[in-house]
Amino acid sequence: MTKSGSILSSGKAPNTRLRARYWLETPADPRKVAETIAGEQSTGTFVRLAPEVEARAARCDAVVESVQEVEGAPHASLPTARRAGDVPVRRALIELSWSEENFGCSLPNLMATVAGNLFELRDVTGLRLLTLNLPDGYAARYPGPQFGVTGTRRLAGVRAGPLVGTIIKPSVGLSPEQTAAMVATLCEGGIDFIKDDELQADGPHCPFEARVHAVMRVVNDHAARTGKKPMVAFNITDDLDAMRRHHDTVLAHEGTCVMVSVNSIGLAGLAYLRRHCALPIHAHRNGWGYLSRHPALGFDYAAWQVLWRLAGADHMHVNGLRNKFSEPDESVIASARALAEPLFSEGLPGYAAMPVFSSGQWAGQAADTYRALGSDDLIYTCGGGIVAHPGGIAAGVESVRAAWQAAARGQAVQEAAVGNAALRQALDFFGK
Amino acid sequence: MTKSGSILSSGKAPNTRLRARYWLETPADPRKVAETIAGEQSTGTFVRLAPEVEARAARCDAVVESVQEVEGAPHASLPTARRAGDVPVRRALIELSWSEENFGCSLPNLMATVAGNLFELRDVTGLRLLTLNLPDGYAARYPGPQFGVTGTRRLAGVRAGPLVGTIIKPSVGLSPEQTAAMVATLCEGGIDFIKDDELQADGPHCPFEARVHAVMRVVNDHAARTGKKPMVAFNITDDLDAMRRHHDTVLAHEGTCVMVSVNSIGLAGLAYLRRHCALPIHAHRNGWGYLSRHPALGFDYAAWQVLWRLAGADHMHVNGLRNKFSEPDESVIASARALAEPLFSEGLPGYAAMPVFSSGQWAGQAADTYRALGSDDLIYTCGGGIVAHPGGIAAGVESVRAAWQAAARGQAVQEAAVGNAALRQALDFFGK
Repeated sequence: MTKSGSILSSGKAPNTRLRARYWLETPADPRKVAETIAGEQSTGTFVRLAPEVEARAARCDAVVESVQEVEGAPHASLPTARRAGDVPVRRALIELSWSEENFGCSLPNLMATVAGNLFELRDVTGLRLLTLNLPDGYAARYPGPQFGVTGTRRLAGVRAGPLVGTIIKPSVGLSPEQTAAMVATLCEGGIDFIKDDELQADGPHCPFEARVHAVMRVVNDHAARTGKKPMVAFNITDDLDAMRRHHDTVLAHEGTCVMVSVNSIGLAGLAYLRRHCALPIHAHRNGWGYLSRHPALGFDYAAWQVLWRLAGADHMHVNGLRNKFSEPDESVIASARALAEPLFSEGLPGYAAMPVFSSGQWAGQAADTYRALGSDDLIYTCGGGIVAHPGGIAAGVESVRAAWQAAARGQAVQEAAVGNAALRQALDFFGK
Repeated sequence: MTKSGSILSSGKAPNTRLRARYWLETPADPRKVAETIAGEQSTGTFVRLAPEVEARAARCDAVVESVQEVEGAPHASLPTARRAGDVPVRRALIELSWSEENFGCSLPNLMATVAGNLFELRDVTGLRLLTLNLPDGYAARYPGPQFGVTGTRRLAGVRAGPLVGTIIKPSVGLSPEQTAAMVATLCEGGIDFIKDDELQADGPHCPFEARVHAVMRVVNDHAARTGKKPMVAFNITDDLDAMRRHHDTVLAHEGTCVMVSVNSIGLAGLAYLRRHCALPIHAHRNGWGYLSRHPALGFDYAAWQVLWRLAGADHMHVNGLRNKFSEPDESVIASARALAEPLFSEGLPGYAAMPVFSSGQWAGQAADTYRALGSDDLIYTCGGGIVAHPGGIAAGVESVRAAWQAAARGQAVQEAAVGNAALRQALDFFGK
């Protein structure tokens, strides 16, 4: 690794290496397997090379930076064809690094390097990508989030506290007019943020153009009357030409946010959208379960979210405390914290994204979420927690907002509820 | 499901439903969980709906077509937050269906429907998408593979037998000139097909433009001299603007194939490329392990490949018999067979893609591959099996071709080797 090259304003040499940490499980020697992976993912070959080729290739070797063995197990996590029956396995935390010169600053090619033909290696019975550290060169090639927390707050007109939001349900089955009617009720209720469901993009029952037209008339009217314009995240997920067209439709109707299912459009798709986008990008992670649900395979969110922030996501879903899915609370908080970690060396932009909490959320999780995160720079979307509030939608919104205000001033939610009927009702109704 | 609508030439009503089969594991009642999934992925909501909304939404309900319970297990495959400790689980094959009217004919939105927020449901301790059947409407929106077997054979000038191919190694570390020198040797050796490695796209050591220029000069010279033009799959994986530019570069230099890492560019990325592409698309599946390696999670290849054929893949990787990875042989063959299954109803194009066998391949697997597949409409890429052949590259190519010719005429490879020194050498050297 050369020490020459451009020097950042901080006076430090730029980071020119890509670093990836993995949890590895193998019936073999973890160090040898780490070296196999490093070879497979850089200069490995099946023949002896000519000396001049050898010399050049050696500069491109991936490096095994560290192998820290941890406690093993009597059985392999993933099946393997070679070994019949169960075998004891060893486990280790390994770190590999690559020079950015191997692949240039290209997100799709980075992906093939750190998460390519690794997970199916014979001697691998478990492999999970834990963290990713990017070379600083990526900051020049990818602009990252365009709006982040500050831009989102400005567009939504919410200076402090979380954006209190909800989701249009049923996700399919509403016409554009029915959707707009629901949005009108939500606006009246004082909501900050509304999102399409990931199942509704441009279906025949609710065509995109007609929906945006109907919904934004309601939103713009409400803004003209009250001065408050809720942010609506329209689901533009589609083929890329359609996605650009949908984006332009939202912009033309003075909408303030677009949403995409990132696993459906892919990394290159999001990077493409970002370059043509004038609105915050709300990144929905549906499908995350198939990438993460087995602890011995796939991705930790800490590594995965780096890719999407780099590609341009402004808002990223992180699930919520006491959610309806299988994810434990500490994992949710770790995900939200990861979104604030700087992607590059000191002196370069951090590319922070805004966490989106959802799934089974209501006023009841505000205090714990705030305490764990130490911040309310987030979007907090409640479904039933707002629209099924016994006092109606306005009371639902009020209950969530009051709970977050109490959390921010360190007041117990039960105490805050003494002077707030909507919050009291929420605690009685949802807190059972 | 309506029986009206356009009638195909076959006289049958078109298929307007999307069908997905899953393997499901749950500590609960599999039928109830299937219904939960159907609700989550269509019209589920948290409140009572107005009657007119209810009526419309009912038409969009996903349908549980069947639940076939199979043998359960004493322990859950995937961890779940709710239940402490191990619980016995039930397992079932379930089939769900959706009307295409729910989401229109859009590949990214189909993805969010069949592989969205499902895998992390609390009552799911295992979920794997086994098969996908598409509504016929997708055939009008997506053109599918542009070249397939016939177009590939024509461009490569290979009328019968597999395209015998190899990979440029080391994947990183060669300059454009060194790459071209290796290609020259391979052309002299009689190769049909050469591919870039998935780690080499447009790295600073081997810039794309310069590599194409150097390699295609060699290939075009060889074609002018001999009348045979090997197909080179150049790895154009990158951000989409760069990908289009790379494609145009290959075309301008009279190249005949482009390669992409499909998990890096995403479904929308491949569909975008297909619409602007004039060359066969060689689809590399690196990363497939994180989508498939645990049998209780993710995708079977039979379901996954449908998405990429629809998006436009002409060639798709399927691994190889006795490969260096963990995949069993029967899985490899099932994958290759799946690529030939028609995607739509009778009377519509089938969208077949050409299987690419690779990983540890040499002459030795030809007979078993042919016997299992009943076809040699495939690309057969050998690394060491060709370039490390003790008689040199020409002998390596000859040994592979001879083995396939023997397989096609039903002759044992040992017998064929009696009159073929290259094959004899391969059996002696690689067959240990």
